[in-house]
Parts: sequence; structure tokens; C-alpha cells
Amino acid sequence: MRELRQRKLDCLTVTHPANWYYLTGFTGEAGALVVSADGNTLLTDGRFIVQAGEETRGVKIEMQQGGLYTSLGELLRQRGMRRVGYDAGQWTVAQLKAVQKAVGAKCRAIEAGGIVEGLRTRKDAQELTVMRKAAVLASSVLEGALKLLKPGVLENEIAAEIEYRMKRNGASGPAFETIVASGARAALPHARPTAKKLRKNELVVLDLGVILGHYCSDMTRTVHLGRASQRTRTWYRAVQEAQQAGIAAVKAGVSCGQVDAVTREVLKKNGLEAYFVHSTGHGVGLEVHEHPRVARGQETRLEAGNVVTIEPGVYVQGAWGIRIEDEVAVQAGRNEVLTRVRRDLIEL
Amino acid sequence: MRELRQRKLDCLTVTHPANWYYLTGFTGEAGALVVSADGNTLLTDGRFIVQAGEETRGVKIEMQQGGLYTSLGELLRQRGMRRVGYDAGQWTVAQLKAVQKAVGAKCRAIEAGGIVEGLRTRKDAQELTVMRKAAVLASSVLEGALKLLKPGVLENEIAAEIEYRMKRNGASGPAFETIVASGARAALPHARPTAKKLRKNELVVLDLGVILGHYCSDMTRTVHLGRASQRTRTWYRAVQEAQQAGIAAVKAGVSCGQVDAVTREVLKKNGLEAYFVHSTGHGVGLEVHEHPRVARGQETRLEAGNVVTIEPGVYVQGAWGIRIEDEVAVQAGRNEVLTRVRRDLIEL
Repeated sequence: MRELRQRKLDCLTVTHPANWYYLTGFTGEAGALVVSADGNTLLTDGRFIVQAGEETRGVKIEMQQGGLYTSLGELLRQRGMRRVGYDAGQWTVAQLKAVQKAVGAKCRAIEAGGIVEGLRTRKDAQELTVMRKAAVLASSVLEGALKLLKPGVLENEIAAEIEYRMKRNGASGPAFETIVASGARAALPHARPTAKKLRKNELVVLDLGVILGHYCSDMTRTVHLGRASQRTRTWYRAVQEAQQAGIAAVKAGVSCGQVDAVTREVLKKNGLEAYFVHSTGHGVGLEVHEHPRVARGQETRLEAGNVVTIEPGVYVQGAWGIRIEDEVAVQAGRNEVLTRVRRDLIEL
Repeated sequence: MRELRQRKLDCLTVTHPANWYYLTGFTGEAGALVVSADGNTLLTDGRFIVQAGEETRGVKIEMQQGGLYTSLGELLRQRGMRRVGYDAGQWTVAQLKAVQKAVGAKCRAIEAGGIVEGLRTRKDAQELTVMRKAAVLASSVLEGALKLLKPGVLENEIAAEIEYRMKRNGASGPAFETIVASGARAALPHARPTAKKLRKNELVVLDLGVILGHYCSDMTRTVHLGRASQRTRTWYRAVQEAQQAGIAAVKAGVSCGQVDAVTREVLKKNGLEAYFVHSTGHGVGLEVHEHPRVARGQETRLEAGNVVTIEPGVYVQGAWGIRIEDEVAVQAGRNEVLTRVRRDLIEL
């Protein structure tokens, strides 16, 4: 509301599901929410209209007529809205055109992206309680999955078992496609599990998260099947040290770019910087990747209520990969690591 | 290529994962493909660069520098592209601006959406073979799941078991979140499974699909726990009759709107039209919802190679719901129903 006044907007349109869930509790997959000083109106179609009424309170529900964005434009016109905030990072060019066509000449669409995303980065106590549970559930599933890892088992069998256990333990599902990547496949940071068999003397990357009570978790461990070589241990220790330093750097007031620089510096000191091909981390919440980004040069400062991953990794093409990832919540004056599985090299 | 010439485009940008997979085999989650007479170039980031090289043939792979769309704009500028096709239904307003800023004044972004989607609607023999397998797998999982349905079992337990079985039987995962909706929850066409227990004398809607070899399947059955009332039988028969008529109407040359009208007409004849709150169906392929839409007024004519769902349903708010859905492939001179579970009312 304050944002609306500051930006002189008559209303803000919210078209991203995680954002309207955050504001209203509506879990449907299609719709558009109009937030204004007069109250909230949710436009949706026949598939979700009943659900919308059940899930929200104090929200006016309207059935869309024709295309969603055309219908949204007509609603804005009927309400006499002049300055309408929209998210240029969410709306497609075609959606903006449909609204502009329906809304008439008196109304202007004004870029106002990231407002709800900004609110979402500051988790309140209730949200943190749910996220803690989601992180603990992911941790226990990961810990249990370690017992399944042995030569001859397929990556995708383990992934199927992991996701089944998530759901049997109360998760509504995985927060993303579970990664079980062994041997050379571990060198692909976003490998999908395949019918490849695990073999002795391979590193295995497990990257997983659950959705519990609508909130995501995200964590990674890399383990070795059999006794690891000296080189593997050295590299693993470097990643572990980088991750530890990154976690320690997470504090209210520190910029995300500084946290990224800390992990990168440790890997550089160990001569491994070139093998770290992605960013240090990202926010987690209703979505598994959300603001803030913990990446090079990011000036956003961490604040209490932020939950971010710290996940440095090193990848040698065609050979192996190592990544360690935990979720860290920023608290006033301290931080709290939400995910809980030992971080030293596990040899199975 | 012919499309590029007809539209006088120097290149087409492809930024939707299913589209670039279709054209190149790349399964990464982030990137942009540039298709031109000189060949294809795939721009992606460090997470997917190795994978891109492994999965594609005859495609130039380039590492993105900075933001994807800025980097894409620079690539287009370096190549001297003047008329660049893009999909206004895929690109966000912010993405278009980033490209326009980087590309310079000599280059024009021209709306050219739906080209690859159009190609994708006409499945070739190899694709149909995969889709047949995906449909048969979904059918056998659905059939197996019927044995799990009994009073006292939770909706989400059944959904977890269904998705586990999909993966154990070779699917890479569910094509969408499996729907197990019982009693009044069956009245929500897109209900998520909850911790609600199944009870005697309830209808249960099972809506599921697998992804197998990158292709989706999609089907629905509604069953009754215990002996159904006369009213339930009458309504079920009406939906079944509507679905049967819809399937029979699927033929090359018939418009999608005509097929939709056929199912709607049967429900109208039975006085149930008002309870049918969505469209008759949609295309299926690399995505679970794709072109063509089988909806009111759609003039697109079916052609050989199309695969669409036919899924009429009736929904009584707060009480019950019935939907029957199969996938139908359009063949020259005939159609082929890909999904295979009996369609009459099953009483468990």
C-alpha cells in the first residue's frame, strides 16, 4: 500500500502465482490479482473459481471473460484505473499488448516489478518456522538416501526413492527435480538423474529439496563411493572451506556480492577458482530460486528474515564435480543454518 | 527455414526450452537458440555449457556473458542481424528491452511467435511411437492405482504412490502434479491431492500423466467407491457419451471448435452444459498443454500427427465432479486413442 502511494499507482497487478499466494493464499495456477486501496480483486477462470473463494478472505473473486489479460484490461477500465503497476519481468510483450488494447487510452501501464518479491525476501517468524521444517525434512531424506548409494544402483532409482520418501513424509513434492549425479555426470551442475549405474570410486552429488507448507528447501551433499584419493580430499576440503567461509559471511548488512566474493576467494587461494562456474547462492522461499541472488557484484544487502543458499562447487568437465549447499537464515545479529547433514567428506 | 524466408527474417530466436529441445536436443533449462540460414547458435551459461555440447549436433555453442538477453542482443549485433524474429508470447517486456538495448538501432525485433509450436503439433512416426509408450505407461499406472483406492486412504498417499510407480517404470517423472480428488474435492477441476481420506460413496477423480522420453501423456478416470446412485450413473453416462462423441469427432480437417461443440452438445442435451466449466481438450507433446486448443470457437483444423486430449467433465460445487479424459492421435483418415483404460463407470 505504501509502495502504491509512493509510486503514485492506482493499483498493482500481480500475475505470478507465488506472489498472489503470498498476498491472498490462492493456490490456483491461473489468474491475476489487482491490489488497490479499495481492496483486492482476483480474476480467474472456471477451473479455479470455487477454489479461489475457499482459499482467500476479503478478496473479491471475479470470473474472467475471454482471455485473461484482455479480461484484466476490461476490469481495470471498469474500475477507472489510470496508473496501473505491472511487472515487466513477468508480463510477456503479448500480455502487455492485450491489456493495453482492452484498457483504453486513459490508462497507463507502469513498470513496478519486484514489489511483492521484495516483501517475500523478509520471512516472518511463521514463515521461518515452516522453512525450518522443510529444511529438516530435506536433511532427513538426504541422510536416509545415503544408505541407498552403492555400486550398481541407478541414479534415477535413487531419485525416485528420494522423491517418494519426501511425499510419504509430508512434503507436497520435490522443490525441483532431484539431482543424483555420479562420476563424470557430477561435473554437470544441473544434471538430471539418468539410468547410469553408480560405480565404486566415484563422487556422487545429491541436490534436493522439498516443498512443505508451500515453502521450498534446497541442499546438496557430495559423497564418495569407496576410499577417496588424496586429490579428491584436497579438492573437497577446499569446497568445504569455501562454503564454511560463505556461511560465516552471511549477516545482516553484508552485501550479497561480498558473500559471493568470500567463497570465491577461498577457492582462488586453492587454485580452483576456474572450476567454480556458477554463483554462490540464491534466496529460497515460496520459490526455490528467488531474491536475493548471492552472486558477483550484487549490491543488495542481506537483512533479517532473508534465507539464502550457500553452494560453492568445482566441476572438472568429463571427470567429476563437488558441491556442498546449505540454507542459511539471516537473523538479527547472527545467522542460522537450516539444513542439517554433516559436511565433511563422507566415504561410503 | 522456409518460414524465415517468407517472413523476411534474418534469424529466429528460440527461448522456450521445449522449442529448443525440439530443434536441437538440448535439455538445459536456460539459454537462447538463434536459428538462421548460416546455422544454429545456442547461447547458454556455465551450468549448461558442457551438456549443450554433449546433447547437440551441428550447433555452435556460445557461453553467455552477463545477462542472457543482453548477451543475446550482443550476439545478434555481432552477426549483423537486421530482422530478428521473437515470440511476443514468450519474451517478457524486460527481456525485449534488454535485447533492444544491446542490439543497437540497426536491428528490428519482429513478432514471430508460434513457428516452432506449429511444427511441434505435427508429430512424426518416431514421436508418435514415444507418445504411444507414454500413454500406455500412464494407463497401466492408472489401472494399478485403482487397486489402492479404498475408504480411509489419503489422497496424497495415493498420489505419492502413483508418481513413484511412474518413475520405477521408466518415466522421468509426472507430466504434471497428479490429481487425486475425492468427494467434494472432485468438483475442483484442478484440485491438488490433500490429506483428505477417501470415504465410501464418493467419486474419485484420478488425473495423471507421465513424461517418457521427453514426451508427456495425460488422462483422467473417475471411479466410485461403493455402489453409485442412480443420479451418479446418469451423470456419468452423459459425460461418457460426450467424451465418446468428442473422440469420434477427432479427424483431420475438422476444426477444434467443432470438436468442442460436439461434447458440449451432448452435455446440453442431458441438461448438464452449465456444469461443464472448461474446454474440451488441448494438444499434448513435449508439453502437457500445447497447441492446438480444443475449445469453443477455435478455428484451427486438426491435421495428421496432432495429439489432443478429449476431456469433458461436470462439476457440482461442494458436492462432486466427473471427468473422463483420453489422448487421441489424428492419423490420415482415422484417429487412434492412445490411452487405454475402460471408460464405463467403475464401482470399487
